[in-house]
Parts: sequence; C-alpha cells; structure tokens
Amino acid sequence: MSFTDVLFGRPLATSEERAEHIGVAAGIPIFGLDALTSAAYGPEAAMTLLIPMGIVGLDYIVPVITAILTLLVIVYFSYRQTIAAYPSGGGSYTVATENLGEGAGLLAAAALMIDYILTAAVGISAGVTALTSAVPDLHRHRLAICLVILAILAVINLRGVKDTGAAFIIPTFLFVGTLLAVIGVGTYRVWASGGHPIPLAPPPPPGPVLVRYLSIWLLLKTFASGCAAMTGVEAVSNGVMAFEEPRAKRAQRTLTIIVVTLIVLLFGITWLSKAYGITAMEPEAHNYQSVLSILTTAVFGRGWVYFLTMGSVLLALSLSANTAFADFPRLARAISVHDYLPHVFTIRGRRLLYSHGVYALTGFTALILILFGGVTDKLIPLYAIGAFLAFTLSQAGMVVHWLKMDKHPGRMWHMFVNGFGAVATGITLIVVLIAKFRAGAWVTALLIPTMIVLMMVVKRHYTRVKREMKDMTPLSLTNLEQPLVVIPMARWDRIAEKALRFGLLMSKELKVVHVHSDDEPAGLEQEWEDKIVAPLKKEGLPVPELVTISSTYRFIINPLMDYILELEQSNPGRKVAVLLPELVVRHWWENALHNQRVQLLKLLLLVKGNQRIVVVNIPWYL
Amino acid sequence: MSFTDVLFGRPLATSEERAEHIGVAAGIPIFGLDALTSAAYGPEAAMTLLIPMGIVGLDYIVPVITAILTLLVIVYFSYRQTIAAYPSGGGSYTVATENLGEGAGLLAAAALMIDYILTAAVGISAGVTALTSAVPDLHRHRLAICLVILAILAVINLRGVKDTGAAFIIPTFLFVGTLLAVIGVGTYRVWASGGHPIPLAPPPPPGPVLVRYLSIWLLLKTFASGCAAMTGVEAVSNGVMAFEEPRAKRAQRTLTIIVVTLIVLLFGITWLSKAYGITAMEPEAHNYQSVLSILTTAVFGRGWVYFLTMGSVLLALSLSANTAFADFPRLARAISVHDYLPHVFTIRGRRLLYSHGVYALTGFTALILILFGGVTDKLIPLYAIGAFLAFTLSQAGMVVHWLKMDKHPGRMWHMFVNGFGAVATGITLIVVLIAKFRAGAWVTALLIPTMIVLMMVVKRHYTRVKREMKDMTPLSLTNLEQPLVVIPMARWDRIAEKALRFGLLMSKELKVVHVHSDDEPAGLEQEWEDKIVAPLKKEGLPVPELVTISSTYRFIINPLMDYILELEQSNPGRKVAVLLPELVVRHWWENALHNQRVQLLKLLLLVKGNQRIVVVNIPWYL
Repeated sequence: MSFTDVLFGRPLATSEERAEHIGVAAGIPIFGLDALTSAAYGPEAAMTLLIPMGIVGLDYIVPVITAILTLLVIVYFSYRQTIAAYPSGGGSYTVATENLGEGAGLLAAAALMIDYILTAAVGISAGVTALTSAVPDLHRHRLAICLVILAILAVINLRGVKDTGAAFIIPTFLFVGTLLAVIGVGTYRVWASGGHPIPLAPPPPPGPVLVRYLSIWLLLKTFASGCAAMTGVEAVSNGVMAFEEPRAKRAQRTLTIIVVTLIVLLFGITWLSKAYGITAMEPEAHNYQSVLSILTTAVFGRGWVYFLTMGSVLLALSLSANTAFADFPRLARAISVHDYLPHVFTIRGRRLLYSHGVYALTGFTALILILFGGVTDKLIPLYAIGAFLAFTLSQAGMVVHWLKMDKHPGRMWHMFVNGFGAVATGITLIVVLIAKFRAGAWVTALLIPTMIVLMMVVKRHYTRVKREMKDMTPLSLTNLEQPLVVIPMARWDRIAEKALRFGLLMSKELKVVHVHSDDEPAGLEQEWEDKIVAPLKKEGLPVPELVTISSTYRFIINPLMDYILELEQSNPGRKVAVLLPELVVRHWWENALHNQRVQLLKLLLLVKGNQRIVVVNIPWYL
Repeated sequence: MSFTDVLFGRPLATSEERAEHIGVAAGIPIFGLDALTSAAYGPEAAMTLLIPMGIVGLDYIVPVITAILTLLVIVYFSYRQTIAAYPSGGGSYTVATENLGEGAGLLAAAALMIDYILTAAVGISAGVTALTSAVPDLHRHRLAICLVILAILAVINLRGVKDTGAAFIIPTFLFVGTLLAVIGVGTYRVWASGGHPIPLAPPPPPGPVLVRYLSIWLLLKTFASGCAAMTGVEAVSNGVMAFEEPRAKRAQRTLTIIVVTLIVLLFGITWLSKAYGITAMEPEAHNYQSVLSILTTAVFGRGWVYFLTMGSVLLALSLSANTAFADFPRLARAISVHDYLPHVFTIRGRRLLYSHGVYALTGFTALILILFGGVTDKLIPLYAIGAFLAFTLSQAGMVVHWLKMDKHPGRMWHMFVNGFGAVATGITLIVVLIAKFRAGAWVTALLIPTMIVLMMVVKRHYTRVKREMKDMTPLSLTNLEQPLVVIPMARWDRIAEKALRFGLLMSKELKVVHVHSDDEPAGLEQEWEDKIVAPLKKEGLPVPELVTISSTYRFIINPLMDYILELEQSNPGRKVAVLLPELVVRHWWENALHNQRVQLLKLLLLVKGNQRIVVVNIPWYL
C-alpha cells in the first residue's frame, strides 16, 4: 500500500458507490451541526458589540436575541415549505436559478461559496477559541492550531465523509447535552436563589460604562452580529435527497428538532448570562475567555464538567466546519455543470468525491484564516451577508415557484410564508450590510460581484469553446494533402537520421533546415550528398531540399522560426509538420549538459504558430 | 533599441570580431592589475596574523615579506620560461594537460576555477575595504556594496571587455603612482628623521602583547597568509596570444615590469609600516582601517592625497576582479571543449563572448561573497591554495615539457629553473594548506576533488553520447514501415477530427482509443459508425480500429499509457506515433479551465516511452 492509500484510502471503483440514506437521528448531526454550533458564537457576537455599555448592556441582550429568534422562526417555516417543494434538494443556487433566472442564481452561487468558506473558517476559529479559553497558554498559537485542524478536516474529507458520518452523532449530542446541562443547572440556581445566583467562580468584572443608552445604530449592529447565530439553517434543504422515504417528512422533522434545540440553546445562554451578570470580553485581551467559558465556570466551576463542556464545544465547532466540506464541493460541481466554474470541479477523485472542491475550500479557508489571524470576531462581520443573501434569494425564488404552480392547493398561503420570509431576511440582509459594512462586510460586498464577474468570464470562455466545437458534422475527407515536413538539423547523426526516416514516412516534400552559425567550421553540405542524397536516389525516393540559413549573430531559434512561419504563409492551406528531435536523458541533471533549444522552439511554435503547424517530437533515449 | 541593447550593447556579427593585439604599456594594466593589486591586501594578510604580538610583531614582518619576495622571484623566472615555450598561451590547464596528463589537467582546472572565483571575490571585497576605511559609515553596508560592484562588473563584461580595455590603463597607473608616492615620501621622512618619523596622524595603538616570541607555527601561518600577495602572477602566461609580435619577448618584458613593481610595492609598504610602527587591526573592529589606510594617513594626513590614494586602491581592486572575468570564461570554454564542463560554455553570446562563463563566475562569486559576508580576511585562507596548486602543476608540467624537448639547447638549465619553481611553490602549497587548513583552506581542499568528480561525471556523459552518435553511416532506408498511429479521443469534436485527418495522412493503421469512465453517460460508439466510419468507407479509405477501454477508477491517463506501452511491445520493430490534440488558449489563465491531461501524458510518454514511441502535437487554437 502506498502512502497515498494509507492517508486517503484506496481508490474506489465507480460501481462501489452506495446510496446510503439516513433517518432523523443521523440527520441532526449531519445537517444540524452547523446550525446548532452557532449557539456557541452567536450570542457572544452580539454581546461583544455591547462591551462599551458595560453592565448596562445586559439589559438589552435578551430583547435582541428574542428578535433574532423570531426571525429564525419565520425562516424555519419558510424552509419547511422549500423542503416539501424540492424533495430532490432545494439549495439556494438551484431554487434561485430555476425561479429567478441565471443572474439571481449567480448571486446565490457567489454568496453561498463565500458562506461555506466562512463557515469552515468561523467553525474552526470558534472551536480554537473554546480551546484557548480553557488553556490560555495556547492563545498565541491560535492560527497554527486553526491550520492544523483545517488540514485534518481536509484529509478526512478527501477520504470520504461517509466513513465518518456516524462519528458525528456523539459529538453533536455531547455538545447539545453539556450546553443543556449548563442551562438547566444554571436556571435552577437562578430560581433557587430568587434571581440572584452566586457564581462558583466570579466572572471577570464588566468593562467601564462608556455608553449609557443604546442608540439605534448600536442596536442594529448588535442585531446584525447576532444574526450569525442563524447561519446553517438552510443545510437540511440542500440535503433532502439523503433522507429515507418519506424524504420530505423526515427532513422537515429533522429541521424542526434542530430549530427548536437551537432556540433553547440561544435563549438559554443569553438569559443565563444576564442572570449571572456576564459580559463579553475584548477578544484581543490577553486573558480572553469566551462568554460560554465564563458562563460554564460560573455554573460548574473549573472542574471536569467545565473541561468536558469546552471539549465538546471545540469538537462540535471543528466538525461544524465539516458542513462546508460536505456541501461546497457539491455546490461547486453544480455551478461547474452550468459552465460557470472550471470543469475540474465535476471530476470525481479516487474516493468518488469531487476532490477539487475540497482542495479549493481548504485553500480559501486557509487564506481567510491567515488573513484574519484566526480571530472569530474579525470573521463574523463578513459572515452573515452570504448566508442572508442566500436565504433571501431562496425564499424569493420560492415565491415565484408558487406563482407558477397555479393549481397547487393552498399556494397563496405558501406564497405568503415564503414571501414573509424573503422580506424579513431581505431587510435583515440590508441591516447587516449597513451595520457591519465598515467592520468587514465591505469585503464580502466586494467579493460577491468580483466572483460573479469571474464566473461570467469562465462561462464566456466555455461558451466560445462549445460554439467552436458544436454541431459536429461527419469526418471531412476533402483536401487531405500531405504536410510539408520541416526537419531542423544541426549535424548528421543518429538523431537526425531517425527524424529524417520518420519524415520520409510522412510526406514526399521534406525541407531539411540547417542554421549555420558563422562560428562553426563546416556546414552540413559535405555529408549531404554522400550520406543522405545518394542512398535516397538509389532507392528512388524523393530527395529533401536542404535549406542552409546563415546566422550572422549566432542565433539559432530566430532564423528557424522565421523560416517556418514564412513557409507556412507562402503555402496557404498546407499543413506544416515540424519534426523536432529530442534527446531524453537518464537523469534530470543531465539536461544541463545539453542545450534546451528544442524545448524553446516547441514553446515558440505553440505560441506563435497556428492551426496548420504541427509539432512532431522524435525522442532519442540515451 | 530594446532595453537589452542599451544594457549589453547591440548584437555583434561573427564577422565583426577584431584581432586586437597589445603592447607592453597596455599589457601591464590588462594582465598585471590582479598581481599588482595584491600589494593592497598581501602585507595586511600577513600582518593580521601578528596582531596578538602587538608591537613585537613588527620585528618579524619584514623578514616574512622578504621570504615571500624570494619565492616571487623564483616563480618569475619560471614563468618567463613558460612564456617562451608556450607562445600561444600557456595557462596551467594547458601545460598540465599536455605534459602531465588529463588527471593533472583536471586538478589544475579545478584549482584555477576556484582561484578565479576567489580573485573576483577578494578583489571586490578588498576594494570595498579600502572604501570603508575612508568612509567608516559604509562599513555595515559592506556586502551590499560588494554585490553592486559585482553586478556592474558582470554587465561591463557582458558588453565585451575590449571596449573597456583602454579604461584600465589610467586606474592602474594611478594605483601604482599613488602607492609609490606614499612609499617615496614616507621613505624620505624616515631618512630625514633618522629612522623615527612622526606620523601626521597617529596610527591606532597596537594591541596588547599577548605572544612575545614567534613560534614556527605562527611564522608558517604568517608566511602562508602573505602568499596571497603572489596571486595573479600567472596571468601574463595565459595571455601571450594577445601581444604584438614578437609575442614572447613583449610578454616577458611585461612580466618583468609587473614583478619588479610588485616587489617595490610589497617591500615598501611592509618596511614603512614597521618604520611608522603600524600594526594591523582586527577586521571585525567597528573602527577598522586597513594597513594601507593607516599608512597613507600617517604619511600624508587625511587630505586630498589620502582620498585620491584610497580611491585609486578601490578602483584598481574592483577592476582587478576583472582579470577573473577576462580569464574564467576562456578557461571554462577550454575545459568544456575537452567535454569536462557543459558545452554551453563554448557558445558565444550576442557580444561574441562566452557569456555563460560570465554568468557562472558572477553567480559563484556572489555566493562566495554572501557566504563570507564580503570580509577579505575570511576569504584569504581559501585563496592561495588554488593559485599555488596551479603554479606547481604548471611548473611541474614545464619540467616534463623540457624533458621531452631533448634537442633544445640549454634544456637542463630550463628544467632546473622550472623544477626549482615547482619545488618551491609545491612546498609553499603544503605550508599554506597546513597553516590555513582550519581557517578555511579545508573548504578549498574539499571543493577541488568535488569539482574533479563533477567534471569526470560530465565527461562520462558526453563520452556516452558521442559513442552513441559516432561513425555516422549513410542514411539507412531499410525497414521503412508506416507507424502505428494512436489517437486518444474523448469525444467527436473538431479537435478530434483534425487529429484523425492528420493520422490518416501518416499511416493506414490507426487506433482510436477511447477511455470510458463509468462516470460518463455514453461512449463514442454511437457517433463512430455514422460520423467516422461511413465517410471513410465511402471514400474507400482504411477504417481505424476503435479501442474502448473501460476505466473502473475513473483514471484516464493510466489506462491510455498501459495501452500504448502494450501496443509498442506487441509490435516489435514498429514505430508508434501518438497523436495528442492540444488546446492552445489565448490567455494563460484559460489553461485553468481545461484539464492538463495532454501535458501529463506527453511527459509520461517521454519518461516511460522509448525510441519507438513518437509524440505528435496537434494544436487547436481557440
């Protein structure tokens, strides 16, 4: 077994593909992890904005989260309908393209690709934040840890996610379970203490109150940041195909459980933070801890429960990045099938995966992590734009979908739900864009049109190629004329003989071109008659023309190129075959001992040549 | 005029070569600069070893230099004879190869190449030392200044040294003139003051006396370091061809003047240093000044004469590196003609120079300067080995030369002179090697055998190639059979059509190979009959065989390679021509939109293929 086999698994035959279908219990970890783990960073993203308000900020956090949860419920009902309408998978790209046209599809495609890259980056960096909250010494190695986790995820996903699908169940339930335990025990303590629980370890004191009243602007920013908690909700609608029949029902049930759990987690964490008087810390602070870490410490102290909780958060967040690895390659393939991305994304690798999608996602995620130093809070402003743009386009597409389905019972109601969802997410999108524009949303706002332009350039290229290739007529056999064969020859040796023999097979019209540098003592003439012309005449074969070009400046390539291009131009319609004898050495370093003119000539013929110039490599193995 | 033309001059036609011959006055700067400028660093190299003796060391410096001058006189007489015996140029490589055999020749070649590289490095770094002695602020930019001067020299030499040859005369006479002025005025002051001259500026105080008596070991080291003063003496013997007739006489006269001047400079500087009580300074000291700088200050003060002297030293030393640029490319060519170096060294560039020799020298000199930080004193231990090895081999070769000339009058006397020279330089070589082994001579001692091994490997390669190519018989026309043509075809499109049309011209036996991945919906079969077979049958042309290979693991390249190699093996004696249709894009980035399988296949066919497999590129321009 080779190293590649050990690392990535043996190649899988196409016939080995298994259509595995999953139930609700497996569906929750696979499609829900991304959404559920938003609970780990969503509340904190909102609370970070309230740091300047110090202890006063706590009065506002519960209402803000309640608004976000309301939006989540709207989106939930909206996606329930999408699942029912697109049982074969209703990702935003598909829904937008089918109902709103190519333009909207491209917008959704760009938004989703950015969203997936950020999902991977935010998942990993938030996981590492959980780790460094528990072990502060690791704080300065944050970026390196992020990249190692990314590499592990890439390898796992190149092996194929199906092998590891089952492994998701335990971390997901551990994550949900420990967080529910924190919320449950915490709530009991609040109740038992009459609303004034005593933390087992005191949380860090809140910062000074710099701002006393919440301005509309700060409110919007807080809401916009908190919306990061909603990302990942669309995942189930992409993957309906993966469920057992009745697909739509099971998918809907999965979505319901995910959303209800998410609401409990989000509300619980926020409400408890307020009850314990916990505020967010500046992420750049040297003793930085996440809100979740402070809260868990307050409820359970720094015992084994704390480390179990933090460990499960780290694990779940890292694995949540896996949602991106599962979906991005499929999305890239779907876009590539429509000619908007390089076709390489449609090729299935050794493990039956669209491996180039994995490569691209890994590369871009690493880039993002490095550019932003692996700091979650710097990534959040870029994040929600893509998700909400995709939400909006998907819901808007659904409205058009119902419009077309004029015989569907209850379509007005469906239209209303999806329309309401579209409007709500659309407004949120605008709020997020405005509120977080300067903090980083401008990056996404610039990236999306750039990506659309790139995709259109790719499409134009493929369209041109297809136009040139389309409507294949039967093989045309007119004008089948022998090519003019050009053989550059420096001296008469075995390589030259091999090329000449091959040339004689190809055509009756041969031109042997000898570039004679004034430097060299003798040309080819003296051997020409004896060694070449005489045997040919004896056999009655056509004699090649010897073209001797004198090179004043000792250049070899230029005169040859000029001759070939001139020959091609003065013989319109004829093909010109250039026979290039090539020395193949045994060791790479031996190339340094031979001039590389043939390589240069090949390159020049390709660049300056045209349809009628064909290069024939005659290898000579030493 | 292009940028290249401005920088390196317009290309020169081979016919523009002029045979310029020079007289004694021009010969002194061109061939003597390297030797004469040794006066600038030779005495200091010896005096640096005596630093631990402080003021006591001054008692020993004059005797050491006297010993070196004696050796110089012996070498002088020895080289006079070489010039007479080899009027067409008697470099060490030539003399050693002709008289002592290839092995000794290789030893001389390796020694000389290292010597030239070090000549360039030491010349430049010693020049920069003169500069930084005058302007101490530049001390920390030493390496950068060295590299800039190297780059300037490389460009000048790529333009052609003949244009600049005349420019050497003034710096040389300025260098000799200013130093003679320092020595003359200084000697007068010594005489006028009765042996106790008062320096115009006091020299830095000598270091503490750490060692009171000169051990044999320290004496040997001092002598060995001072021998750097003798490098460059062989230059005239290399260049006898450049002189006007009577060549040998003029060359001998030139050598005489150079050696006499060198003796005066070396002795003068050393004796005056003692008289003024000047000791060398640690080269790493922050206020470091060269001995020459201290001496000139002592004699003339820091006026314009000082700066003129230092300026002329800088200029002359930098130009002395030029000796290496003049000789190295010629030496590399001579070795390359004997197949011991890549043949590229025999190609003359746009300005009729062996430009690859200039590239190689520049590269290695830059490497040496960087590795040793541009510090002259670190380079000196490496230096003299190469020169003295070349001296010894050259003289020893001359002894054999005279042995063979059994009718030459006075050959016994000649043999004695050269033999004495060989023994003297040979002993010095051993002394230098032992004395400076740990200080850096081991580097040279390691490099020389390494280079010899490399040269032998190169020779073996060329010998093998020549063996395969030699004894060219007339063109063999037996067994001229049409090749088997293999056309890999993914689908029926215009590129495939072009390849097939070309294939039909080449042979009657065509194999169209279609690798069918289980992934893809349909094979080529359906179009095959209608679009390809039907038209061919109608025209009565041979129908290609369609070979469909099913690929279980979706690999395309491997099955194709396997098929081609199998076809080649099952048809012994037949040529197999593989026609590879290649898409040529308009912009380089468009390559990312097409898979690069053709490039990979081409590479594999070259690596795994053999004499009978020929690759034909059919380009398709989009």
